Amino acid sequence: MPYNEPEKKLLDKPVILVTNDDGITAPGIAALVKAMKTIGEVVVVAPDSPQSGMGHAITVSEPLRLDEVKVFSGVRCFQASGTPADCVKLAVARVLHRKPDLVVSGINHGSNASINVIYSGTMSAAVEGAIEGIQAIGFSLVNYSHQAAMDASIKVATKLARKLLADPLPQGTLLNVNIPYVEYGKLKGYRICRQAVAKYEEKFDERTDPNGRKYYWLTGDFINHDNGDDTDVWALANDYVSIVPVQFDLTAHYAIANLKNWEGNV
Amino acid sequence: MPYNEPEKKLLDKPVILVTNDDGITAPGIAALVKAMKTIGEVVVVAPDSPQSGMGHAITVSEPLRLDEVKVFSGVRCFQASGTPADCVKLAVARVLHRKPDLVVSGINHGSNASINVIYSGTMSAAVEGAIEGIQAIGFSLVNYSHQAAMDASIKVATKLARKLLADPLPQGTLLNVNIPYVEYGKLKGYRICRQAVAKYEEKFDERTDPNGRKYYWLTGDFINHDNGDDTDVWALANDYVSIVPVQFDLTAHYAIANLKNWEGNV
Repeated sequence: MPYNEPEKKLLDKPVILVTNDDGITAPGIAALVKAMKTIGEVVVVAPDSPQSGMGHAITVSEPLRLDEVKVFSGVRCFQASGTPADCVKLAVARVLHRKPDLVVSGINHGSNASINVIYSGTMSAAVEGAIEGIQAIGFSLVNYSHQAAMDASIKVATKLARKLLADPLPQGTLLNVNIPYVEYGKLKGYRICRQAVAKYEEKFDERTDPNGRKYYWLTGDFINHDNGDDTDVWALANDYVSIVPVQFDLTAHYAIANLKNWEGNV
Repeated sequence: MPYNEPEKKLLDKPVILVTNDDGITAPGIAALVKAMKTIGEVVVVAPDSPQSGMGHAITVSEPLRLDEVKVFSGVRCFQASGTPADCVKLAVARVLHRKPDLVVSGINHGSNASINVIYSGTMSAAVEGAIEGIQAIGFSLVNYSHQAAMDASIKVATKLARKLLADPLPQGTLLNVNIPYVEYGKLKGYRICRQAVAKYEEKFDERTDPNGRKYYWLTGDFINHDNGDDTDVWALANDYVSIVPVQFDLTAHYAIANLKNWEGNV
């Protein structure tokens, strides 16, 4: 089970952990493995089933399975029964027994721009990498189809992973990369962005099961409330790859000074 | 199923949505309901089973159940099959058919200080409230036992909910409140804090099932790397209630300027 490649080999090339939230058999992770094999020593630890919408879930109330599987030729692959964040923890503690040089997650089938970052299993794996002190990127393609062409995304992921390895981010920072669904030649370039202020207007689609009991499907419309041209939503609408630097310090530092008067006053 | 209290009554008192991640039968939510009944019109929409560690998970690949149940006397209570974030979405869209004035989540059995905020189902419900534009607080007691005394926490939750309703936070901001496990008279007061820089050193406890297959329990040690006296970990260690203002804009704004040179240079 442990990953026992000779240390020498590990030192020659960067070790890249690839994971995702659509599960180990999704086309997006195959594309990401293809891209990363041109850069480094790839190891895959990914969920054995789709985990979309898992946010930063971890599995604490049941045990995890971890099995080596043959999925991508020439690459050690492991599937786990948990969430994307679990996969990163398992990879470091039980597969690699070391920190990889880079964690890449995706390529997600669908946008993780704006508020999606907070619901995204793809991004939770990248965030978990950054918590471990590892350089990390989550990649998403703005197309939900498993039949979507991945050529442009493979080129983008390769370039950005090389760039990040050459020019690493400060501790506690990672990248949320979204790729518009256009041909590579039609991409306008790369934009460093902030997360757009947007939210879902939820609806629940009510149905009745064969036993007469009601159940609900979560659905809803993505509503952008942000006209800024420095946002990820703007970049994607204008055929730029959006790159948002992300942090996991959730402290609203701007609010601390005003709240200080609560201390003697609750 | 819809919540059809007369509008007049709703206008007299604040409408308070209570939820949690330990499930609707946990002692912590009973304590929070008791506290909130002294302030407003309480409605409970909470998970039908424990959801600890769910982070900001939402349920997108299976339908949800939502059933009215009798759990707390004099309070409309609904249990849902989903995550804490699902419960808030369901409450707004299918139970209240309006936004409550306050979302409170907890009282969690165990700390959600520091990096725990990112794994916490309790906090994900409060974050979802804030995404909806509602004032929101997550409460956690630094004791994992379901037998822990809740008196001090009930007093703290009551005071802080009243304070927040009187003195609301800016849009996009909510509170992560952790309460040390000491008698009310021994609490030193309230501290406005930042999230301490800390992480888990994960371990996976390996076991073998009756069929000879391995499985793993996630475990690990919480390691605080932060000596600041302005952190939640410091406050709790010194018997203060810690109050961290939290945001869901994950953009690492500090990193944008340096990254701008990537734009023409990937």
